[in-house]
Amino acid sequence: MHRTSLILALAAAIAVVSPASATEGMWQPSQLPAIADDLKAAGLELDPAQLTDLTGSTMGAIVSLGFCTASFVSPQGLIATNHHCAYGAIQYNSTAERNLIKDGFLARSLGEELPGDPNLRVYVTEEIRDVTREINGRLKSGMDGYAHFEAVDRAEKEIVARCEKPGGLRCSVSSFYGGASYQLIRQREIRDVRLVYAPAGAVGKFGGDVDNWMWPRHTGDFSFLRAYVGKDGKPAAYAKDNVPFKPKHVLPVNADGVQAGDFVMVTGYPGRTNRYRRATEVADAIEWSYPVQQQVVTDILDIIDAEGRRNPDVAVKYASAVASFNNSLKNYGGQLEGLGRADAVTSKRARETELDAWLAQQGASEAGLRTDIAALDTLLAGQRATRDRDLILSYLQRTQLYNAAYSLYRLAGEREKSVIEREAGYQPRDEARIEGNLRQMERRGDPAVDARILAYVLKRYTKLPATQRVAALDGWLGEGAVADAQVDAKVQALYAGSHLSTTDARLAGLKLSRQQIEASDDSAYRLMAALMPDLLRIERERKARAGDEMKLRPRYMQAMIAFNEAQGRAVYPDANSSLRVTYGKVQGLKKDGVEFFPFTTLEGIVAKTTNVDPFDTPAKVTERIKARDYGRYASPALGSVPVDFLADLDITGGNSGSPTLDAKGRLVGLAFDGVWESVSADWIFNPELTRSIQVDVRYMLWVMDKVDGATNLLQEMGVR
Amino acid sequence: MHRTSLILALAAAIAVVSPASATEGMWQPSQLPAIADDLKAAGLELDPAQLTDLTGSTMGAIVSLGFCTASFVSPQGLIATNHHCAYGAIQYNSTAERNLIKDGFLARSLGEELPGDPNLRVYVTEEIRDVTREINGRLKSGMDGYAHFEAVDRAEKEIVARCEKPGGLRCSVSSFYGGASYQLIRQREIRDVRLVYAPAGAVGKFGGDVDNWMWPRHTGDFSFLRAYVGKDGKPAAYAKDNVPFKPKHVLPVNADGVQAGDFVMVTGYPGRTNRYRRATEVADAIEWSYPVQQQVVTDILDIIDAEGRRNPDVAVKYASAVASFNNSLKNYGGQLEGLGRADAVTSKRARETELDAWLAQQGASEAGLRTDIAALDTLLAGQRATRDRDLILSYLQRTQLYNAAYSLYRLAGEREKSVIEREAGYQPRDEARIEGNLRQMERRGDPAVDARILAYVLKRYTKLPATQRVAALDGWLGEGAVADAQVDAKVQALYAGSHLSTTDARLAGLKLSRQQIEASDDSAYRLMAALMPDLLRIERERKARAGDEMKLRPRYMQAMIAFNEAQGRAVYPDANSSLRVTYGKVQGLKKDGVEFFPFTTLEGIVAKTTNVDPFDTPAKVTERIKARDYGRYASPALGSVPVDFLADLDITGGNSGSPTLDAKGRLVGLAFDGVWESVSADWIFNPELTRSIQVDVRYMLWVMDKVDGATNLLQEMGVR
Repeated sequence: MHRTSLILALAAAIAVVSPASATEGMWQPSQLPAIADDLKAAGLELDPAQLTDLTGSTMGAIVSLGFCTASFVSPQGLIATNHHCAYGAIQYNSTAERNLIKDGFLARSLGEELPGDPNLRVYVTEEIRDVTREINGRLKSGMDGYAHFEAVDRAEKEIVARCEKPGGLRCSVSSFYGGASYQLIRQREIRDVRLVYAPAGAVGKFGGDVDNWMWPRHTGDFSFLRAYVGKDGKPAAYAKDNVPFKPKHVLPVNADGVQAGDFVMVTGYPGRTNRYRRATEVADAIEWSYPVQQQVVTDILDIIDAEGRRNPDVAVKYASAVASFNNSLKNYGGQLEGLGRADAVTSKRARETELDAWLAQQGASEAGLRTDIAALDTLLAGQRATRDRDLILSYLQRTQLYNAAYSLYRLAGEREKSVIEREAGYQPRDEARIEGNLRQMERRGDPAVDARILAYVLKRYTKLPATQRVAALDGWLGEGAVADAQVDAKVQALYAGSHLSTTDARLAGLKLSRQQIEASDDSAYRLMAALMPDLLRIERERKARAGDEMKLRPRYMQAMIAFNEAQGRAVYPDANSSLRVTYGKVQGLKKDGVEFFPFTTLEGIVAKTTNVDPFDTPAKVTERIKARDYGRYASPALGSVPVDFLADLDITGGNSGSPTLDAKGRLVGLAFDGVWESVSADWIFNPELTRSIQVDVRYMLWVMDKVDGATNLLQEMGVR
Repeated sequence: MHRTSLILALAAAIAVVSPASATEGMWQPSQLPAIADDLKAAGLELDPAQLTDLTGSTMGAIVSLGFCTASFVSPQGLIATNHHCAYGAIQYNSTAERNLIKDGFLARSLGEELPGDPNLRVYVTEEIRDVTREINGRLKSGMDGYAHFEAVDRAEKEIVARCEKPGGLRCSVSSFYGGASYQLIRQREIRDVRLVYAPAGAVGKFGGDVDNWMWPRHTGDFSFLRAYVGKDGKPAAYAKDNVPFKPKHVLPVNADGVQAGDFVMVTGYPGRTNRYRRATEVADAIEWSYPVQQQVVTDILDIIDAEGRRNPDVAVKYASAVASFNNSLKNYGGQLEGLGRADAVTSKRARETELDAWLAQQGASEAGLRTDIAALDTLLAGQRATRDRDLILSYLQRTQLYNAAYSLYRLAGEREKSVIEREAGYQPRDEARIEGNLRQMERRGDPAVDARILAYVLKRYTKLPATQRVAALDGWLGEGAVADAQVDAKVQALYAGSHLSTTDARLAGLKLSRQQIEASDDSAYRLMAALMPDLLRIERERKARAGDEMKLRPRYMQAMIAFNEAQGRAVYPDANSSLRVTYGKVQGLKKDGVEFFPFTTLEGIVAKTTNVDPFDTPAKVTERIKARDYGRYASPALGSVPVDFLADLDITGGNSGSPTLDAKGRLVGLAFDGVWESVSADWIFNPELTRSIQVDVRYMLWVMDKVDGATNLLQEMGVR
């Protein structure tokens, strides 16, 4: 291992200031001073150095919801994010009688605000600190994959535990450049987050799945939450007399918005990109991962749909899951289209050949790199042997009864260990989240549907070859070719014999010891007790492979960085849910036969309205548009109020809800999607076709002012 | 009844020469001299009077395939039409080993041409003659609905029989303006039609269902057929030594194509529009017909899809049905969106109120019209009582075993009558078509899938209220709430007990008498014998209602025509599968946030190509494009070869395959689709959003020349 030279390479990577394109790049805040000239040239009027201060006047206002980004927009802890990011909270508060998804919601005072779903959190990043040396210090040469994994895991847990000690904090160690660098991220964790305002569903998700990834777009994808803390100012669980959190910084709102060509940037928490994957990994995604998941998700959606037609209650409970599955499905299709369009495998292979040739030229100093890259490819090939099984196990975890039994039994087992030895995800710090999951299962699922999905996944399992079978699962279902009817019967018996479909039984399970669970006659516990040894063995094998990968992937990144540096190209790390900045400008897109203009307007909403979901605009909206009641929110250039706009920003999932900022760091919109051609930008970024879609702040304010009369919030945000 | 005044009104309607918009209007050829000034102003360089000659130099080349339009493009009977219109013929000649759908097909000589599917016909219109007086002469005042229907039906049959007497002809009487006018259409029927050339599926249906109704579009939706006749020049059944038909006229090809702003017209056979429907009929379509059919078609597609995944043979057999169902499904969605967007019910109601007010002002002379319009609305309301049953009966007819038993038994019954008394569709002239249907069932369906679809439709039936039940069906299935399992058992027994799933048994059935069928122990015959009395009773009730409608709808049209005339608006009849002309110009479309340019180009194909169906461009195509091997087919304005283009033509289903002609009547493309906003133009035409999509003749020629080397055809068309 050549860790020192790698760290030097990383430092060099940051110093090189010519990104591959003007728009590509999810930059870490700490990288911004190094690309200050580019930022200035692009139009940024703030000092880039200011943006490195995570608690400073811009970055201090940016928060994470875990799966989305959000931002403080008032000193009273008011938070702006996407409607689809607040969807869980909206759904949690919806019933057949009081359907907030459909009708929207506005709290006219703090007292009217509604508690979010139990797992809703706001994470305020306070510090990002490099801990690479500390972690690498635990590694010894000659460690096998599992030992390597465990050493890093242990080190991370210790660093996290130390960091979280003061309380009210959420710390995590993120891996950058495939494990070449580790950074400790310290976040304040706010657990009392309330729903303040959501427009009607026909505004907030106007266009629905039909328009998902599409342009022209007219979605009012925004909602407001509020962070609450205890009276002592410290994060606390929901309590009626908690008080609004007072953030140190809030984003000023630029109610005049931006126009075509203007500088914009997005700060947020992009989830995951694969820009530095090996060609074989791209090929696996194209040939196996996406197609197989398309099939599984389609089948699961069919099951939910069939039940939902019979029972409207099921439709409400699964609304969020269906939205998420549909989004995944469209995403898989888009990935496949985009990867095919870019001929991704061929182009990756060509780059790998170039890299290899370049490394060969570098002589002896880099010879080890070529060997390690070859070893990485061998390792990746080995992972294919059990990929079908592993995918099925992951889908089993997405069914409720199985997941509940697994969580409870695993947690009981982990509780027997010392805190630091407990598996990540089952430590004391995770218990509230686990409880939240168990608590909301009833609102998010239905045992009959859940059973059908479980049976479906198990039927796929029974078609696996012997090499991918799990002995304990076979012990339950039968070995070899098991008839579907037998799977159905097993699943039926499993549900009939378990109480874990009820919230009470699941919460009671949290109090049980491992021995009590093993002695239980609940059929789900009995199944899980039988499966767990095999599942733990599989987990250990996975960790061993991950440890090997942690040794080899940084070597590949080291080569990539050196290679790019030699060509004067800067390297930013793949997205990993940590705070990033992307910048660019407001601009449309031209393709063969069509041009996308950068803005849509109110009139486009009326033109698209069909009164059929998802184009069923509320009458009030239509009426105000037809009356040309633009208020102060019209763009002079457009002669109307802008609704959504395009920019060439480099975002991905997790960036949803991210504030879009103008050159002065003022809020001008919220990123919520990309155009269809952006889907595959997760793998390969094409600056000509990749466009982010933002809801324009002027449309947000117009809806609040003219449609929903949210004057309380407008005042709070200082807009009127 | 005021038939004389109505006919006068019709004459007046034709004389008025200001159509509602520059582009709306599916004009009968005989109407063109009346709008000659508009045609000239729009750019037509031919004499409009020339276009009234159906056997003349332009119209003589336009033919019907029954469900699509086509045109002669060589003196050797070569016919150009859409790939999707030739799809049946392509599919009929495809097997798992020799997949012409995927690979395309080119006959390099006459001898290599393949027979089309048994029902493929070419109809050459020779005469259109008004027979209104002859038909109306059979009507007596005081006739009830059934008598009225039968009188018209009998008159039509007699006129058709007389017309077809010379042989080799297909005659039909079409009703215009809701029955106000009847016209006899005489067509030469060519029964030996062969497949000459189809590009690869990835050209001919590039974009598939994803791009259906979409722009930008890059579909090479063209294919070539050839008409054959006996050596005596007369239409004949397929025989190896038949000879190419020599049309009197063929379309010249303009290999230079058209450009933005140019005059274009489409001549063809649009199937059906509903531009003059009552508001209640629009409301029924929105609230009942489209949503219910969406559900049924979705469910049937699910059944076919599930079986197709297990069995690739099923997927091939149902490919055409799936394409058609998917097209319907997208169509229903588009209709609902468009009707909602246009607020169609409200706007229709407003126009009806205007009409009523205007009629009231006309005084005593038109008082009867108001009464008759009210009576029409009452009649339409009455039809709703059994609409669910009637829809289910229509879907039963789309299942194969049921359809085979019905056709055979009905035909045997009708054969006992005199020719003129035999039901339309079961006359001697129809027997070849019936036999063709029975013959190709095996290639177009699978008994297991068919049984599942039948069971699905019957399960819907068993959920109908008592008022819509059919006694004989209840006698078979059971009355009231019948368990789904019982339906499954009945259907299983039906298929187990019938031989009609085999071609031999179906063809043998054609030779059976009614008594023989009734004495058969084949379960499908037994079922049909039990059902037929009820089905015939329902048919008679339908005819009685249709007769009442035939009395009242012309009265409404009379009022509409008079009302429009008073406002200086011309009236063209709704589409009814008869020959029409629409004209306009090549132009794109601008909507909020987006502009559609009028042309796409070759480069757009490469940009869209993903190597995943339906964007899996053949390597040869990609290679020729990348080599910029445009040949003589590039547009100087575009700097590349145009692929598809937009025009503001008023077309609908049935127009598919229609030649698009330039100002001199030369072939410049083939109409094959419309943009999404055009779907609902069947009900309400919006000149700003309605655009037809044509494949450009330059792309057709380029593919033939550069990709498939179809030099024989290019030479035959006089292009090189």
